[in-house]
Parts: sequence; structure tokens; C-alpha cells
Amino acid sequence: MIKINGDVKKAATLEEMKNSEGIVEIEGAVHKLRDMGSFCFILIRTLDKVIQVVWDIENLGSYNCGEGDWVKAKGKIVEDTRSKLGFEMHGAEIEVVSAASELSPVPINKGKVNLHMDNHLKYRPVVLRNPKVRAIYKMQEGICRGFREFLTSQDFTEFHSPKIVAQGAEGGANIFKLEYFEKMAFLAQSPQFYKQAMVPVFGRVFEVGPVFRAEKHDTARHLNEYTSLDFEMGFIDSFYDIMNMETAMLNYVFELLETEYKYEMDILGITLPSAKNIPSIKFHDAKELIAEKYNRPVRTYKDLEPDEERLLGKWAMQEHGTPFVFVTHYPSQTRPFYTMDDPENPDVTLSFDLLLNGMEITTGGQRIHDYDMQIAKMKKLDMDIEEFESYLMTHKYGTPPHGGLGLGLERLTMQLAGLDNIRFSTLFPRDINHLVP
Amino acid sequence: MIKINGDVKKAATLEEMKNSEGIVEIEGAVHKLRDMGSFCFILIRTLDKVIQVVWDIENLGSYNCGEGDWVKAKGKIVEDTRSKLGFEMHGAEIEVVSAASELSPVPINKGKVNLHMDNHLKYRPVVLRNPKVRAIYKMQEGICRGFREFLTSQDFTEFHSPKIVAQGAEGGANIFKLEYFEKMAFLAQSPQFYKQAMVPVFGRVFEVGPVFRAEKHDTARHLNEYTSLDFEMGFIDSFYDIMNMETAMLNYVFELLETEYKYEMDILGITLPSAKNIPSIKFHDAKELIAEKYNRPVRTYKDLEPDEERLLGKWAMQEHGTPFVFVTHYPSQTRPFYTMDDPENPDVTLSFDLLLNGMEITTGGQRIHDYDMQIAKMKKLDMDIEEFESYLMTHKYGTPPHGGLGLGLERLTMQLAGLDNIRFSTLFPRDINHLVP
Repeated sequence: MIKINGDVKKAATLEEMKNSEGIVEIEGAVHKLRDMGSFCFILIRTLDKVIQVVWDIENLGSYNCGEGDWVKAKGKIVEDTRSKLGFEMHGAEIEVVSAASELSPVPINKGKVNLHMDNHLKYRPVVLRNPKVRAIYKMQEGICRGFREFLTSQDFTEFHSPKIVAQGAEGGANIFKLEYFEKMAFLAQSPQFYKQAMVPVFGRVFEVGPVFRAEKHDTARHLNEYTSLDFEMGFIDSFYDIMNMETAMLNYVFELLETEYKYEMDILGITLPSAKNIPSIKFHDAKELIAEKYNRPVRTYKDLEPDEERLLGKWAMQEHGTPFVFVTHYPSQTRPFYTMDDPENPDVTLSFDLLLNGMEITTGGQRIHDYDMQIAKMKKLDMDIEEFESYLMTHKYGTPPHGGLGLGLERLTMQLAGLDNIRFSTLFPRDINHLVP
Repeated sequence: MIKINGDVKKAATLEEMKNSEGIVEIEGAVHKLRDMGSFCFILIRTLDKVIQVVWDIENLGSYNCGEGDWVKAKGKIVEDTRSKLGFEMHGAEIEVVSAASELSPVPINKGKVNLHMDNHLKYRPVVLRNPKVRAIYKMQEGICRGFREFLTSQDFTEFHSPKIVAQGAEGGANIFKLEYFEKMAFLAQSPQFYKQAMVPVFGRVFEVGPVFRAEKHDTARHLNEYTSLDFEMGFIDSFYDIMNMETAMLNYVFELLETEYKYEMDILGITLPSAKNIPSIKFHDAKELIAEKYNRPVRTYKDLEPDEERLLGKWAMQEHGTPFVFVTHYPSQTRPFYTMDDPENPDVTLSFDLLLNGMEITTGGQRIHDYDMQIAKMKKLDMDIEEFESYLMTHKYGTPPHGGLGLGLERLTMQLAGLDNIRFSTLFPRDINHLVP
């Protein structure tokens, strides 16, 4: 926190500082002490910046604070081009408001936090105070904010769906069970059924919320709980409308990051990729392209293997100058029962994934809106229609052609920030071994 | 959806319609048909408005759509002051894009949906299409949006905390358990521990997310899952800073509702209460005031009884002209272990509730920031310190004086909209009997 003339300010530009009529007050943690004998550099970490205070030991005596203490400092702002911010504070008064009980066990005042993953996670509440680490989550805020701002401007309505549910939307065994009074319940794998129910209500809807997957994968790109950015839109002409909406949203987000989150982008050294013209390739064609181009025989036509996704990312960058690539028309057998099949070839679906640097960050597509068509597909899959009576009300009582997508916030953050493990883009990750903090 | 000259528009003012060069295209559901013999009124429910199309049976022949169908209609806009919107459409072309399979079993095209609660909930995916019902959730969007916009303007950072946790923050037995691989886990009762951990990271933080309470109460004001608007702020001088922040936030939200959500406020017939000057009264004084004023002996000094809260709301309205009232200094024994005790009287805490129309909508207060003080309080309460090792890192390695609050989104919506059951302000409520839809 920085107080200039009594006003709390986040942006501490030299200009604002100069207009401060002499005395500026800053609040923050003592980030680092560099005692030079006759004076001491006291680096104070405010809510977004680290400001250097020069403490004159010769004239003021010894400073009264230690690293980790939370202080208020009053002083004069002095221009100094050697400093990153272009100014420093010449301190006259430092008040310790809250003293730390112990020194940080991890180096939060270094440029980079080099720790074994176990310690990284164990000390997460402290590690997050590192300016480079926290910048990741500030950028993450920008992604969510951009997602919501853009969709709101496109007449989407935000909604909140329950996370305790009676059935899974994605099928499979990777679902958490819980006792709900006398009943058995589950944790939502996605807001799919609810966002479809909301299409006939508001036409276009979105949700930002947690989803839960009981996958036992302990990999660098899987979490058991993550934040999903979901939207669903009615009256589409085809699933390409959804891809176009996502592309426009990503461009809005990137512009927001480049303007309002520039400070963090600079700390992280991020240059955002181009999302202006994202290439699109059909699943089957992608398989054969990769096989031919990278001399890698197709082992299965069921799904893309991680290695194939990686090579597709490489291809997109080489051929189209972007790390993004849409893959469309996934096989029907690998997509959920609500996915619309391609009327021209029912073996494939009107669906897509968006890959970034060869990693899937979005799954989306057109859904079945016709009641009879949905019933027929469920029967073919041997599903219990009665169990889905409530879900099927959406179709039975009329719903427009629609589709949508789910975007993994942590995966997008990870790829944009160039991180090699999704745990580094998740505040408090949940994996098979980590439930604390 | 309304397309004017090819542009998708939400706002369909007469002015915009007039500038449409003749033909306007609207998309929506056939909300109601009123066949008058020689012509038919076809009411079309777009994503926010119901637009009347006049179909000329004599000249065009019979219309081809039924109630519940989703259609595209093209026609000319004609001014008509008898219509609510000031205009109607004289239709020439209606295309059924998606036909309903059955007529709605509930009267969604009536002004009010009169149903037994069980049917209200059973048919929720259909009931929500009623314009008055959906307006509640549009207003709810406005509350969340205002909350976030205001806090962002005050330098708060949004974050996402895990919902699967290793321990409860609020104590007590009202916590859902789940199997997390080989371990036992819980569903978060609040993001309390995490928002405290985030204070030394960003200084000021907020989260909008689900919280879970396994309470067996089956009342008009309890849910087992609800959306909590949480914030936490560092460097407070006292817990009154938090109350002031909440007051300013509410005023921002109300202004947003009155401007950008006016259409919905009108449908719901809502006049927002004043939140300019919210009275504040100490818990003990409130008890005695109610006892004396309403001739109702105090039965316990442990907590406020629902009836006392109701009378306090009445008092605030009579004496201060607002249905809001802050109650402060709750007894230490009824507040969680992280609450700061009043140094002048350790039997009470530096905490508050905000009541609206006599119902608690917010709980907040100052938290203990000093490590030794927190350890001492936990020992006094016979708590296992080791179990909270991770939580206590926040204190041990230094954190500023801080506090925050949690605001129940559905309760605020319920009170503002004048609803008599919280299930009417929750899209898909979770209570002891309802897990579907």
C-alpha cells in the first residue's frame, strides 16, 4: 500500500510521487535489508512493487526493523535512475506494525525461488510472497477478468452452478464421491448440464468456478481440482461460432494483460503469443499430418497422444507463426454423449480442442439440442434415460442450437508464463499427494 | 438475440429499431401465442426481452410455430405505445430453428409462477425461463459484477482457493467429508485460511466461490451450498475499515443495479434500500435495546436469536430509515479461533455481522495477526497446534493487521428482491432433500 497525500495508491509512478508535497507513506513487508555500514537499503514490498528506502545510519542511528516485518515508512521521494522504478525513498521514520516471529525459511527475496517441488508446495503461503511468484497469480487474475469482461460485452450472463451433484457430466470413473446426508453425491466434473440448462434462460452464459477430477495421474499437467472458464451460447450456426468467440476472447485478454498487467508481464519476462489467426485442422488430418511430417506412425485413431499434441504445436508455430491450433472433428466414441455428431459423418463430432504449445487448454463443441436425437444417442450408448430426466428437460421443452467450451485457467496461465509444471500456476494445488496447504 | 443490420444487440430500444433500415431479425423462444382469428400475437422471448410479433393470418396464412419452439423472426418494427417496449414487430417470416418436443408443464409465460416448492425445484430448468424468475438471476449477476468491479478499483486482487481441504475453518460438525484417494478430506466451509494466507501476498484479496455447509437445518434461509463473496484486507487500523469498505461496495453495487440492471429491477418491482448511513450497534447493547424496546426478555447472551435479529431490522428501519444494521463486538465464545479479541474486553471480539431486514447477510471482523497471540488463543481453546502448522505460516513469517468478511450472495439477492425463501434466489439449490437438478 502506498499513501500519497493520504490517498491509497497502487501505481507509484515518479510523477505521482513527485506531486506528493514532500512526504510519502508506504506500507509493506521488509523484503530485504542490505546494511552498508553508514547506511542501509531497506527494500519494502508493497502490494505490487518493491520500493527501496535508504536509511541513513550515521544520522538516524540503527534501523529498527527486520526482514519479514510489516512496516509503515514515511519519507521523501528522490529521483534515482539507477533504481528500477526511477526513484527511491529517503527514510526518516519506520514503524513496525507487525513483527515476524521467524525469518522466512525460503528465499522469497531472491529473483527466483529454487526449491524442490515438495518444499515449494509445503511453504506455499510464504513462497507466494516472492515478487516473481505472485506476478503469476496477478496475471491469472487478468485472464479471469478479461474472460468475464469480454463475455459480458457480448451479452453473456454469469451464473453459479452447484458443485455437489447427483451425477457426473463427463462419464468415467474419475469422479469424487461424498456422503450427502443419506444420499450418495459427487463433485462436479464440469458445469456442463447446468450451462446447457441456462442457454434457454439467458441465451449466452458463462461461469468461472472450480471443477473436480479424481484422476490418479500424477503428471506435470494434471490437477484434481482446477478453475474452469466455461461458456455456452445459443443460436449458433455451427461450432465454428464458438471457436471464433474464443479467439476474440483470447485477443481481448491478451490486450488487457499487455496494458493493465504490464508490470507483471515484465517481471515474468512474458511476450504473449499471437492469437489473431489460429489455424484449424481436422482430427483425422492432424493424425496423418503428424505421422507423415514427423515420421511417426499412427498408433491409434481414438485420441491424440501427448506427443502428437506436442508436434502439432510445433507444426502450428512453424507453418502459422502461432503456438495455438484448433483440432476439430474428434471421433464420436471419445466425446461425451451430449456432443453433436457430424451429420455428414456420424463417426466424428462437431467438436474441437484448442492446443497451446502442444497442450490441450480447451475442449468445446456443439451439443445436441433436439430431444429425440439426444434420446436416440443415449439409447445407443445404453444409458439410463430416466436417470437424466432433469437434464433432458432442457431439450424436451425446447432449446436453441447451442454449444460452448471449458478452458483450464491453470493450463493457460502455465503456458503463457512458460512454466513447466501446472503446480506453478496454481495457488494451492490439489494432486494425489497434496491436500495441504 | 436481436440482430439489427446484422449486429447482435441486447438493447432493443425503439430508436435502435427505427434505425434498422426496415428489416430486423430477432431470435428467441415462442413465449406465448394469442390467436385472434384474423391475426395472432406471437410473443418472442429473446435473451432479455419479450417482443410482440403481430402475425397477419389473413394475408400470410397460419403461423408455423408453437409455444416453446425456438425461432428466428424477421419483420418490420412498428411503433405502438400500447406495448410495454413502445414497439412491436409486424412479422413476415418466422423460421423454426429448434422445435420443442413438449409444451412446458409449468406456466412460464405468466407474470408469476405459482407452484408448490417441490414442483418449483423439480422443474427448475423450465421455471427459470420465466421472465420474472430469470430477472432475479440477472440481478444476481449484477451483484457479483459490482462486488468485483468495486474491489478491483480498490486494488484488491482476485484469487481462487481450493474447495477440497484438509480441515475446516469454521469448526463444528457441519462439514462434508469425502474420500480423497487414500486420505480423508473435507469441502471448504469458507476460504478463510486461504484469504488470510493471501494478505501478505497481495495486501488486499477477494474471491467469489462456492462454500459448503453440512447443516441439517431445512429452513427458508439455509442452503448446504452457497456462493460466498469474500474479501480480506491488510493494514487496517480497526475492523471499522472493513465495515466501511463493505458499505462503499454495497453503494457501488446498488448504483450499478439501478443503471445497468434497471430493466430487471423494474420487472421485479424492486426499490433498493438506502445503504448510505448504516447504523452500528454493539452486540450487548443490541440485546438490551431489543429486550427493553420490544418487551422481550434476553434468554441468552451467547448469540442473537432470529427473532432478535428481525426486531433489530425493524428498529434500524424505524430509527435510521434503513433495513441495514451492523452488529459489532460479538462474544468471543461464539466466534472462531482466528478472531481478534477486543484488548479492552477479551470477552468480546473485534467482529461484526451485517443484517438486512433482520437477516444476517455478512460475517466479518479483524483476525489475529501476531503469531504468539494466535498460538496462545489456540492453546486456550485446546486446539492441536501441529494440525494447523501450514495455516500458521502466515503468522509466523509475518503478516500485517488484517480482517475481512464473507457475504452470502443468495441471502443478499433474496432480501433485495423481497423473496421469502432462499431457494428462490438460488439457481439450483442444495438442501437436505434436493440434489437434483
